[in-house]
Amino acid sequence: MDGLRITEIAIDESSGWLHLLTDSDHAGCCPGVPPTSVETIRELYSPLLVGAGPHERERLWHAMVARTADQKVEEPLWAYVDVALWDLLGKAVQLPVYQVLGGFRDRIPASRHSGSGLADDDVIEAAVTAATAGYWACVDAVPRPIEATLDLALRIRQAVGPDFRLIHDGGGRYTHQEALRLGRGLEAATYHRLENPMPATDLSGLEALTANLDLPVYTMNLGRDVHRHTVSLLARNATDGLIVSVPASGGITDVIKLARTAECFGINCELGVDRTMGGYVHAQLLGAVRNAHFFATIETGEDASEAAIEPLRPVDGLVPVPTAPGLGLQEQVRG
Amino acid sequence: MDGLRITEIAIDESSGWLHLLTDSDHAGCCPGVPPTSVETIRELYSPLLVGAGPHERERLWHAMVARTADQKVEEPLWAYVDVALWDLLGKAVQLPVYQVLGGFRDRIPASRHSGSGLADDDVIEAAVTAATAGYWACVDAVPRPIEATLDLALRIRQAVGPDFRLIHDGGGRYTHQEALRLGRGLEAATYHRLENPMPATDLSGLEALTANLDLPVYTMNLGRDVHRHTVSLLARNATDGLIVSVPASGGITDVIKLARTAECFGINCELGVDRTMGGYVHAQLLGAVRNAHFFATIETGEDASEAAIEPLRPVDGLVPVPTAPGLGLQEQVRG
Repeated sequence: MDGLRITEIAIDESSGWLHLLTDSDHAGCCPGVPPTSVETIRELYSPLLVGAGPHERERLWHAMVARTADQKVEEPLWAYVDVALWDLLGKAVQLPVYQVLGGFRDRIPASRHSGSGLADDDVIEAAVTAATAGYWACVDAVPRPIEATLDLALRIRQAVGPDFRLIHDGGGRYTHQEALRLGRGLEAATYHRLENPMPATDLSGLEALTANLDLPVYTMNLGRDVHRHTVSLLARNATDGLIVSVPASGGITDVIKLARTAECFGINCELGVDRTMGGYVHAQLLGAVRNAHFFATIETGEDASEAAIEPLRPVDGLVPVPTAPGLGLQEQVRG
Repeated sequence: MDGLRITEIAIDESSGWLHLLTDSDHAGCCPGVPPTSVETIRELYSPLLVGAGPHERERLWHAMVARTADQKVEEPLWAYVDVALWDLLGKAVQLPVYQVLGGFRDRIPASRHSGSGLADDDVIEAAVTAATAGYWACVDAVPRPIEATLDLALRIRQAVGPDFRLIHDGGGRYTHQEALRLGRGLEAATYHRLENPMPATDLSGLEALTANLDLPVYTMNLGRDVHRHTVSLLARNATDGLIVSVPASGGITDVIKLARTAECFGINCELGVDRTMGGYVHAQLLGAVRNAHFFATIETGEDASEAAIEPLRPVDGLVPVPTAPGLGLQEQVRG
């Protein structure tokens, strides 16, 4: 392990798989790299990574963040490398990532997210399916005018009965006044939570909304500056919970820092729908993070995984954390 | 590793060493358990620990915190067990703890802390020794009336020259008005930082002090409720940095959460003088935490280690992080 050193960042553009090749038999992988970022990732991070090992993750993370700071990229591109470093470490020590991070659980309650393009009846059917299958909650995310959204919310509530948890995802599209009206209506439909009602950058609006609604408001945190932005939200009591995601909020290292910070603040740090890594990275994180309620799944035409991976699926409403070393991903043959 | 299970919490009262015995050859250790806490630790945590493994640290940490919540103990007694769990994991995967946590560095700048019982000339001499030996800073912590403290500060400054970092530790003993007067005087003596000026519970006072002084103010965070208290300080901008400690602020798990939270807030999380674990736990933490400046040493009659351990010592002003698996402590034979 001490001798294990990275020799190359290899990314297969067609499959989107990143491999950290080493001078040992182990390689660290991360799926889901967008073709447009392949060259940037290789150029920015290869000089930092080659010759280093996965036991230097924190140093490498800081170096990659710093190296990205003066580049014209909006996304936290180090996320893909960071995920592969954790995978490599897990394989080297023969433990799944969640057990290296500190195991909290090995099965995670699932929520079912409607796609954004569904007709009303399909949304209702998805909610009923989720309730019947023992899911923790159902999240509806179809963009409608407010009155239509609330009308649909009442119909969903009627279909699933009084006890099943319902969550609305506002897609960050509302003003403060609209979000307040929406929130009051969702309270009347006994919703469980309102996710992502307004742009996450509207601190004053979110502060007022959170103070005025009884309904918990969760805010999505994405992008390169997610840490600084998150502390602004927390310090101002401008959200009741965080929603983050790999790779959109950074890598495993980023999300663990955010989750532990949220935990100190006594709030949850949920992981959104994983569209590029088949859910494996989110599952490993949720296996080590207590302050999150659910593993977010999407089971419609918009598939969870754009990469060549069989996405993780709930069993009896629970997603089992993969227990093979590293991320638990079936290693793909390099193209 | 997957089969490794804890069979017993064994604590030797006379040496203060805690051992997590397992059904394998590995044992996790933690030194420094006070004799008065031995029975409580065994009674509270044995039912949770026996049969579990070190890959379940996060679950066990939460269970221990919860188990402690309704007990009449002020200290975070789970700290000793948590440290031993990390030691056990490190040994099981054959990595030093700092590399499991995410390696950031393998040598840490040292600061030298004067004891609290020194005469003025001895404090000055300690500062000169520290400056000469290439330490990062010297911390004076002798309790004096404010005017005497400032007089001494000027004499120390004169003795070490204009560039060496000087820090005053106020021991939490001043009122807001006194701390402001003290801080102004230390600014005039070009001090680097004022640590621990007021009781950490005086949020309003610390908020005003931090706003008024240019000199950075660091606040010590101890006790069972250190997480909740820390977020109050951070949310109110009531400190420029944290000072925490194992076991007084909890275990490795607690301190990592606090350090990552401070990192998100863009501030430092220093580790105070370790008086019971020979510095090994603080060194492992500092090997993985970027947002701390120094390893705090004390080299006077008040020895750093009350346990039967050879304390870590700086070499050329830097403390090397022990690289043996786990904490890097020489395993003590069980008494």
